[in-house]
Amino acid sequence: MARINENYDKLQGGYLFQEVARRTKRFQEQNPGVEILKLGIGNTVLPLAPKVAEGLRKGVEDLCSIETYAGYGDEQGNSELRAALARRYAKRGASIDPLEILVSDGAKPDSGNIQSIFRIENVVAIQNPAYPVYVDTNVIAGRGDKIIYMPCTEENRFFPELPNKADLIYICSPNNPTGGVATKKQLKFFVDYAIDNKAVLIFDAAYGAFIRSDSLPRTIYEVDGAKECVIEINSFSKYAGFTGVRLGWTVVPFELNSAEFGKINALWDRRQTTFFNGASNIAQAGGLAALTEQGEEECQWTIDYYMKNASIIKTGVEGLGFKAFGGENAPYIWMKTPNRMPSWSFFDKLLNEAHVVATPGSGFGSCGEYYMRLSAFGIRENIEKAVEAMQNLNL
Amino acid sequence: MARINENYDKLQGGYLFQEVARRTKRFQEQNPGVEILKLGIGNTVLPLAPKVAEGLRKGVEDLCSIETYAGYGDEQGNSELRAALARRYAKRGASIDPLEILVSDGAKPDSGNIQSIFRIENVVAIQNPAYPVYVDTNVIAGRGDKIIYMPCTEENRFFPELPNKADLIYICSPNNPTGGVATKKQLKFFVDYAIDNKAVLIFDAAYGAFIRSDSLPRTIYEVDGAKECVIEINSFSKYAGFTGVRLGWTVVPFELNSAEFGKINALWDRRQTTFFNGASNIAQAGGLAALTEQGEEECQWTIDYYMKNASIIKTGVEGLGFKAFGGENAPYIWMKTPNRMPSWSFFDKLLNEAHVVATPGSGFGSCGEYYMRLSAFGIRENIEKAVEAMQNLNL
Repeated sequence: MARINENYDKLQGGYLFQEVARRTKRFQEQNPGVEILKLGIGNTVLPLAPKVAEGLRKGVEDLCSIETYAGYGDEQGNSELRAALARRYAKRGASIDPLEILVSDGAKPDSGNIQSIFRIENVVAIQNPAYPVYVDTNVIAGRGDKIIYMPCTEENRFFPELPNKADLIYICSPNNPTGGVATKKQLKFFVDYAIDNKAVLIFDAAYGAFIRSDSLPRTIYEVDGAKECVIEINSFSKYAGFTGVRLGWTVVPFELNSAEFGKINALWDRRQTTFFNGASNIAQAGGLAALTEQGEEECQWTIDYYMKNASIIKTGVEGLGFKAFGGENAPYIWMKTPNRMPSWSFFDKLLNEAHVVATPGSGFGSCGEYYMRLSAFGIRENIEKAVEAMQNLNL
Repeated sequence: MARINENYDKLQGGYLFQEVARRTKRFQEQNPGVEILKLGIGNTVLPLAPKVAEGLRKGVEDLCSIETYAGYGDEQGNSELRAALARRYAKRGASIDPLEILVSDGAKPDSGNIQSIFRIENVVAIQNPAYPVYVDTNVIAGRGDKIIYMPCTEENRFFPELPNKADLIYICSPNNPTGGVATKKQLKFFVDYAIDNKAVLIFDAAYGAFIRSDSLPRTIYEVDGAKECVIEINSFSKYAGFTGVRLGWTVVPFELNSAEFGKINALWDRRQTTFFNGASNIAQAGGLAALTEQGEEECQWTIDYYMKNASIIKTGVEGLGFKAFGGENAPYIWMKTPNRMPSWSFFDKLLNEAHVVATPGSGFGSCGEYYMRLSAFGIRENIEKAVEAMQNLNL
């Protein structure tokens, strides 16, 4: 008799964004005429940059002619794209071999699957609050009782202390959901810890392109020693508006191939060639265009637009008397609820009184309780409307 | 200290197609001027059908305008596409609810990931020979000692006997690699067995569109009772030339949600929403076009072309005195090597003497030893050249 994976029963509730969608839908059904203003899910809204569109079009047209048609590509990604990504790292002073970069269909799958190349018995340290995928995928894999949470609070400026003992450590910077960004010095503590303890850091850099301060690291490989202990995951989703196009990559440095760890680069390669069949070649053609000089400039325009939104939101909610963090080098504002109101209560209040959807901080972990994540991914007009609508809150 | 998943050490060798590629590359390097003729990997070569291309173009253009731009879609796939797939099942007399269909980036990821919603302790029955992903993903998950192999030999006409005791059973029809196709009666035996033993069948129908005989089932849901015990996996890769575009789907019927099994549809939904972020919306727009009347007609033209190739290969190798199976309702020919020559020896011989690449049968399992898989996915001229070049074999 077939028996199901019992670890699914250990998951807490549904996937956060699905619950947000469910409550929003119910509200919309009960209030059919009302316009809902979304500061919720981190979903891009601006059209693709012209150069990127050109790349995608070429990707399609190449498939329409027998001379240029291509079927399965390398599961690890096409070599031109891997080389272009390596050059992007080089610009930040990080020396990455194209073969260390494995292209995928996004940072979510990679950050979910990366744990599978490690043994179940490893102790896993995860920021609290954090992107729910890190915890959920480890629980499903059977590490429910092996997770250490690293609190990120106002007191530690939303960057965690070193864990007592951990084998795998997830760090996300710029952080989703707090909008905090780690300095090189902060990351260096973790890199040193990982090297000393033979731990592996899993660094989620999906929001790196939103960093505006040049002194902050856009990739952890700007930090000395990182290549010995860090797997970095990144994405075109927010950088190039590829949330629906699906393209990301993971860097697994050869330096991780050690006597202690075994061949981690080869393991991830084997994982990807066995469970995955490559990212869409159309998406890869678009990604390649996004990494050209023109593509980078155009994508930067979009990022600047979203960061202007972030500034409007932050200024706006601060003007209403809220305490808010982040939003300066990240597209998320981490706003404290008034009078320690629980996140989901404030979610409902915000939806009912201002018709604004935001993401309850508690959905990202217990330390996210009493916070809301406000997302800067929106059309300017709607962002302004949402901030204005929040004046209707009965505080 | 981070420790790696020890199950990776239990995998046998590299991924089959990578080893084929490695040997082919070495031969090419040593023989730079020589034209290599490929009957190897099942990779499509014909350009996309006009209607499908139109769909993909629309997918791209929708992303280029703020009115039609869409970011993250539902992880389960867009509802129009799910409805169109349900209508396709209805044409074969199978009643499938769109919500039972979860769209993905291909049959390979789905057939690799599906085992993860089941407990490690389940006994898994897999055809021998079989597509390597079924075995490899179960070994990586920790079921290396829980796999029962079901021999598929000339004696049983390449369709297995019922296993003695199994909880999960993988069946692929039309079969990769043998090219055999199960009848309704043969499938009914397995469906009855699964219902009696509360086992779950995982049915890989990725080659269903290649069936020419109308009495053979294109989907297992043409068989009574299948909805109670079968998860079916399918793909646009071979049907619409989407090997590089990446689009597939998996049907998890609500009838599987039972007291015994738990809510399997909801489990797969949770798995996909946690580890996956949806198939590319461009690919989905293309898939939708492939399911229109015009799209289906055009895709059928391509399938007919490949099946003509299959006929040329089969007739050709039979003319050379080889014994060959399949190729009539599947794009693969399963050819016996001469004088019980091991598959990999024959691979090298074929490459060295005829410059033809085929896939060693032993790479699909021990019962594939002394066979070669010949793929009909090629340009007609190259297929004809390859068959002719095989006359140079020193037999």
